[in-house]
Amino acid sequence: MGKQPKSAISPTRAEDYPEWYQQAIKASDMAERSPVRGCMVIKPWGYALWENIVQAMDAMFKETGVKNAYFPLFIPLSFMQKEADHVEGFAKECAVVTHHRLEKDASGALVPAGRLTEPLVVRPTSETIIADAFSKWISSYRDLPILLNQWGNVVRWEMRTRIFLRTSEFLWQEGHTAHATQAEALERTHLMLDIYARLAEEVLAMPVIKGAKTAAERFPGAVDTLCIESMMQDCKALQAGTSHFLGQNFARASQIKFQTADEQEEYAWTTSWGASTRLIGGVIMTHGDDDGVIMPPRAASAHVVLLPIFKKEDERQAVMAYTDGLARELRSRAYYGRHLVVEVDPREIGGARGWEWIKKGIPLRVEIGAREIKENTVFLGRRDKPHTERSALKREAFVAEIAGILDDIQNTLFARAAAFRKDHTVEIADKGDFYDFFTPRNLEKPEIHGGFAISGWCGSAACEARIKEELTVTIRCIPFEPTGRQEACIGCGKPGTCVVFAKAY
Amino acid sequence: MGKQPKSAISPTRAEDYPEWYQQAIKASDMAERSPVRGCMVIKPWGYALWENIVQAMDAMFKETGVKNAYFPLFIPLSFMQKEADHVEGFAKECAVVTHHRLEKDASGALVPAGRLTEPLVVRPTSETIIADAFSKWISSYRDLPILLNQWGNVVRWEMRTRIFLRTSEFLWQEGHTAHATQAEALERTHLMLDIYARLAEEVLAMPVIKGAKTAAERFPGAVDTLCIESMMQDCKALQAGTSHFLGQNFARASQIKFQTADEQEEYAWTTSWGASTRLIGGVIMTHGDDDGVIMPPRAASAHVVLLPIFKKEDERQAVMAYTDGLARELRSRAYYGRHLVVEVDPREIGGARGWEWIKKGIPLRVEIGAREIKENTVFLGRRDKPHTERSALKREAFVAEIAGILDDIQNTLFARAAAFRKDHTVEIADKGDFYDFFTPRNLEKPEIHGGFAISGWCGSAACEARIKEELTVTIRCIPFEPTGRQEACIGCGKPGTCVVFAKAY
Repeated sequence: MGKQPKSAISPTRAEDYPEWYQQAIKASDMAERSPVRGCMVIKPWGYALWENIVQAMDAMFKETGVKNAYFPLFIPLSFMQKEADHVEGFAKECAVVTHHRLEKDASGALVPAGRLTEPLVVRPTSETIIADAFSKWISSYRDLPILLNQWGNVVRWEMRTRIFLRTSEFLWQEGHTAHATQAEALERTHLMLDIYARLAEEVLAMPVIKGAKTAAERFPGAVDTLCIESMMQDCKALQAGTSHFLGQNFARASQIKFQTADEQEEYAWTTSWGASTRLIGGVIMTHGDDDGVIMPPRAASAHVVLLPIFKKEDERQAVMAYTDGLARELRSRAYYGRHLVVEVDPREIGGARGWEWIKKGIPLRVEIGAREIKENTVFLGRRDKPHTERSALKREAFVAEIAGILDDIQNTLFARAAAFRKDHTVEIADKGDFYDFFTPRNLEKPEIHGGFAISGWCGSAACEARIKEELTVTIRCIPFEPTGRQEACIGCGKPGTCVVFAKAY
Repeated sequence: MGKQPKSAISPTRAEDYPEWYQQAIKASDMAERSPVRGCMVIKPWGYALWENIVQAMDAMFKETGVKNAYFPLFIPLSFMQKEADHVEGFAKECAVVTHHRLEKDASGALVPAGRLTEPLVVRPTSETIIADAFSKWISSYRDLPILLNQWGNVVRWEMRTRIFLRTSEFLWQEGHTAHATQAEALERTHLMLDIYARLAEEVLAMPVIKGAKTAAERFPGAVDTLCIESMMQDCKALQAGTSHFLGQNFARASQIKFQTADEQEEYAWTTSWGASTRLIGGVIMTHGDDDGVIMPPRAASAHVVLLPIFKKEDERQAVMAYTDGLARELRSRAYYGRHLVVEVDPREIGGARGWEWIKKGIPLRVEIGAREIKENTVFLGRRDKPHTERSALKREAFVAEIAGILDDIQNTLFARAAAFRKDHTVEIADKGDFYDFFTPRNLEKPEIHGGFAISGWCGSAACEARIKEELTVTIRCIPFEPTGRQEACIGCGKPGTCVVFAKAY
């Protein structure tokens, strides 16, 4: 294959995937660790991607009748306790507010003062406080359904954090709905999962598997948790969104009752569903290459950067005029529901400039110099192709076809990710093969392993727990498709159903 | 004048303004108190207004080169202490996180556990943590300016809360910029104040006075605080947005240094500026009438509600078809940069239906019955006119003119608020008149007082403090216009400059 091309990120993915991830983020200037334990600073280039994800998701939610609302950041301790599984699930990671002012002690040091009679938990999720509101708002079947969503921040105290993937504070949306019937609540649970799948595949170019979690992996307090699972380039799974059917659990805990049309009193059926800034981590790990981040065009922080080149000072004016004119023209065009976002970078810093934009993952780089003006062309680099592969295009053709070029990149990224997943998804019926599949080939790099194993599972928590214990492999989901294929349990050999096993983030 | 028209809100504004405010919010279904002390639940009808405000503001910010970012919710105690005035100003209202998990005590009760070595403050504002980031990001004049904005929640522990106006948690944006020169930072401070004024006047139809705060009213840590002040219908002032010139105070506290073009080391000049969900309270108190909330069309949660009327069951189908067709047609039209938001309310609940929408403050109500179909008309009620005043319009004319009608309402609201402020703004040179102006005419209703007094002030903190003490009247701002008019100080009679005195929220 000849010599390896120069790589912008060190180490490469093959050398050290977790470190590549950190370095790719650093090089892209999307985010950084903050001085607050486990919290991150999302910088403008990363936040713009989040804004585009938010906009796309928000529109999809609203199309289904969901409206946005906002509930308090703080949850009284007594609310957390209402649902036994729920508090059990979150107790170990709650930030607790115990005081409401600061004062100076004898030594002049600032200390907490004004102790609260009831401590407040910074929301790790808002089921309990929203259920309390629902219990006041709902009295008749006429008040149902209630379809709400909240955009906000939550805190889950994490001991081992990784930027975007697992941080103590993260941004997310949490949807909460209440229904008169189980069937309607179940339908909503699936509808929202479908939206997450559509977002992941159509907007973020991340192929996902839809399925249900096992009891062990369910949301604390849920009857059923549905999820989308995506494969990263180290073959680990990333849970990219979850939709929970809560049954009447939270309704019972918070007394969400309503009178039916025939005047019976019943508990409402509720759902909740969430997706977070973790998706950004998923985008980076799905598409990034050894040159850094690659942003899928439909969600990219910007679509194209124009890089004017003037070798002689007297070329500057003409090149800048051509560049600015092209920028104006492009900005008036739309792609996937928003105006094209065009960056112009006239800094005279040599080759570092192009590399910066490659590492940021912008879909298109356009160089403009005296030659382009003369020939009325642009010199185009696509982020989905090797950075050395660039080509001239007539300016008019470029402007006319840019949406098509962006969609071509979008499709390439999806196809590449789908092919990668296919290559690393194996049906395994033999227990020995299964253990081999998940045993690191290189003991110095335990993160490199097989991928997704489609294997039988008898349904017992014991088999699931043993595999998790021995291999740190979990059942990512009981996939909706193919439905219920039978296969002997990989753990005990008893009759079972096919599920997706993998290591996971 | 004849008999008083029926009012939807009890009490009326004249009877009890603060209670009218609470009842108007309740009747509009915009928000409610939460079980968490001092925090509110923003319901969909209130949140949609906020979303429109956010969208308008965000676009205005971005036009000036500002980009969004996100910083941690928590601020280490040591950061708060870096700027002496800053910590002094916020220490009394800080929610403090001291533990990071919950566990059961001997009695089985859930208690905070896992004490943090350094307590964390839930951000009351983010100057200190953002200054820390700036100190790492900035090393050369080439790194400047940095123009960032953050959308998020903050917590300032309040003892006496009022929904939207003063809550322990509120939603807001906070902008933070760093510059190489004092002049540029000052220019940015003024630019952002101009944006707040434009938002208030053009989008929310709230006339404002722009000016500077006195030293006593400044943001803790600021060199200068600029503000916009608006008059509510009880003649009190509402500070609707502030823009702070922070000088080099936070730069010195956090060591934000840079190398100038001629290789000198200097501290950066920073600004910060914020506006919050308090604006919603301002909208309600500026425009609301005794029938409830009135939403300015440019920010309204929805523009128009269609109210189908079918006296006989056999009319239903035709009326609903006409209604749905009209809804579709309207939704394809735009007003002030967004698609028309059209509500259709087919509930058969009699007159309560129309009243609900009046109380919600939707700009336009359209009744559609057999007669309208026959005559191809709509029967239109405008929220800026008495609820009994409705008129028929040809359907085509309505669709064609709806943007104009909405703008007419927008202008009426602004003109009304401007006239009200004019009527209650008085130039007062005599101390006795000044004290009379601010002395409640009715001792049972201390909230009813004069309005804005334009009077002289010598510049001494003593005169300012005495007036505040004796009348609970503060200097709202030293207005930019008219600039520097001379007048003897209303407190001591010494030479002074005209300022705006008022009671305030």
